Amino acid sequence: MKKYNVAVVGATGLVGREMLKTLSQRDFPIDQLKVIASERSEGKKIQFEDRELTVESVREGTFESIDIALFSAGSGVSKEVAPQVKSAGGIVIDNSNAFRMDPDAPLVVPEVNGEDLREHQQIIANPNCSTIQMVMLLKPLAEKFGLKRLVINTYQAVSGAGKKAVDELIEQTKAYLNKEEIKKENFNHQIAFNAIPQIDVFLDNDYTKEEMKMVNETHKILHDPDLPVTATCVRIPVIFGHGESLNIELQNDFKIEAVKELFSQTKNVEVIDNPAAEEYPLQIDTENNDNVLVGRIRRDNSVENGINLWLTANNLRKGAALNAVQIAEYLVENNLV
Amino acid sequence: MKKYNVAVVGATGLVGREMLKTLSQRDFPIDQLKVIASERSEGKKIQFEDRELTVESVREGTFESIDIALFSAGSGVSKEVAPQVKSAGGIVIDNSNAFRMDPDAPLVVPEVNGEDLREHQQIIANPNCSTIQMVMLLKPLAEKFGLKRLVINTYQAVSGAGKKAVDELIEQTKAYLNKEEIKKENFNHQIAFNAIPQIDVFLDNDYTKEEMKMVNETHKILHDPDLPVTATCVRIPVIFGHGESLNIELQNDFKIEAVKELFSQTKNVEVIDNPAAEEYPLQIDTENNDNVLVGRIRRDNSVENGINLWLTANNLRKGAALNAVQIAEYLVENNLV
Repeated sequence: MKKYNVAVVGATGLVGREMLKTLSQRDFPIDQLKVIASERSEGKKIQFEDRELTVESVREGTFESIDIALFSAGSGVSKEVAPQVKSAGGIVIDNSNAFRMDPDAPLVVPEVNGEDLREHQQIIANPNCSTIQMVMLLKPLAEKFGLKRLVINTYQAVSGAGKKAVDELIEQTKAYLNKEEIKKENFNHQIAFNAIPQIDVFLDNDYTKEEMKMVNETHKILHDPDLPVTATCVRIPVIFGHGESLNIELQNDFKIEAVKELFSQTKNVEVIDNPAAEEYPLQIDTENNDNVLVGRIRRDNSVENGINLWLTANNLRKGAALNAVQIAEYLVENNLV
Repeated sequence: MKKYNVAVVGATGLVGREMLKTLSQRDFPIDQLKVIASERSEGKKIQFEDRELTVESVREGTFESIDIALFSAGSGVSKEVAPQVKSAGGIVIDNSNAFRMDPDAPLVVPEVNGEDLREHQQIIANPNCSTIQMVMLLKPLAEKFGLKRLVINTYQAVSGAGKKAVDELIEQTKAYLNKEEIKKENFNHQIAFNAIPQIDVFLDNDYTKEEMKMVNETHKILHDPDLPVTATCVRIPVIFGHGESLNIELQNDFKIEAVKELFSQTKNVEVIDNPAAEEYPLQIDTENNDNVLVGRIRRDNSVENGINLWLTANNLRKGAALNAVQIAEYLVENNLV
């Protein structure tokens, strides 16, 4: 089997480390592996299976002979460095917001629109974590019943904001319990024992960037630019795993049992929906589970063809690293590298 | 000024203690004051201003000469004991679910439907905490623009489940940080660093009782039994203050500025809505604030006349104790005792 030269850019971050773990767990066919981060981390050692890798920073020639570079180092780095990979002949799979709405960059969840990779021009965008887990459910619903309108509310984990954000939640929580001063650096408001109804910056329309990512990325991934979608994104004091509550209007009538059956037959989706036993998806359940978990599936009688449901997924894996590696796998399996 | 003989039933609980505090803060005209709890708490001392009160349990004659009894001891106690107060000639203001949907019992938020108290038959119901804060905003919207449909998502604090639930969140959080075993007693799932998409028990329609309270109580309070409403209620690891995200379809067109102006003129509602300064209502802001806080007010372009907003309020005060005391004040001011 052919092997590939792979680079992970942002290798020391939460998502970068998860990318390395995922490449190993899924036996991605790697020849050379480069781990790249900022100059601050240069020289650090990272163990990958039986290889001891040394963290490099980006220099001239870094990406020569690299086939696939997985990026998770923020959109500034992506904008600057991704073109270098492309010039050197490699493919970028970028976890940042830099190229997601670029018409030349496919925005891909392999189970949903893997086919879009066939048109790639060496830069491929990995969608926003909250969007990825949601479209895994919207796609089968769209195909079987048609989508009419979508109201999204998120309950997002702090790990979506990186390792420092996780540390801040932990430190603030300890300070609260010890009645000490609560220090804020990464979050603009206290996150310990509090929720913050803002993720990413505000835009001119008074929605946050995160909320508009969910709207615009959903349009692009589902190839349905006119689908009415609205979102409210809220950060809650949970460490790992994003929760989402979806209120969906379908085009056509449905039986609730048929929706449950549809999801139970959808690849990488798991139905956990047993009200009698008080079983439904939890965010803590996603720690060692790569599936999108869905439950609380029930008819919404306040509108025609309405449905409510609740889903959770691991925001660092299916929401980021795993999806990026799945894109790489799709490229390899379909001779698109 | 006339003074009244008052009893607080469930005086040792989170809401009961808040009721006593509120009665004092608002100088409710009290003559005799009885503090009542279960036999377990009998004999405990409670300080109320300069009086040292002794906790009593319910016995024959307990409610003789009581004018107003504020109940917060669970619906079992309310069902059993409230009729005794009524027989003795007193008025019950009940914070439990026992009488809320009873057609003979007014279900009242004084700012919204205080007039309903004029028809009281000695038992008056205090609505569910999540419903109270929401109808404070729905009423002015209904009057000015008309309501068409409502999608509710809640982000509810653990204190809504009582003192033991708060203790459990704290204990689980400590255990998590110390890598010790997480013990569950009050919540069916881990609540530390997790969200639970279930509040109260499940009903036959797969909604929870809390979700259907929000639907049915809203219908009753707004006198609009056909208003399409759907709700998803989620417990998050926050101690005090409920957050809610509302997606509202109005009957008539509106200007966003007119909605903000409307709320800013609504009594006991405070608009905190400055995206440029990243200001919006937080749950921790409600600790010493009795108002309903509203922000993130923005047009929802996914539907005609749509609006999204976010609100928070103190679930123990406006959501429970304060609203109950305000009902008592309304009775006194309007000679309805």
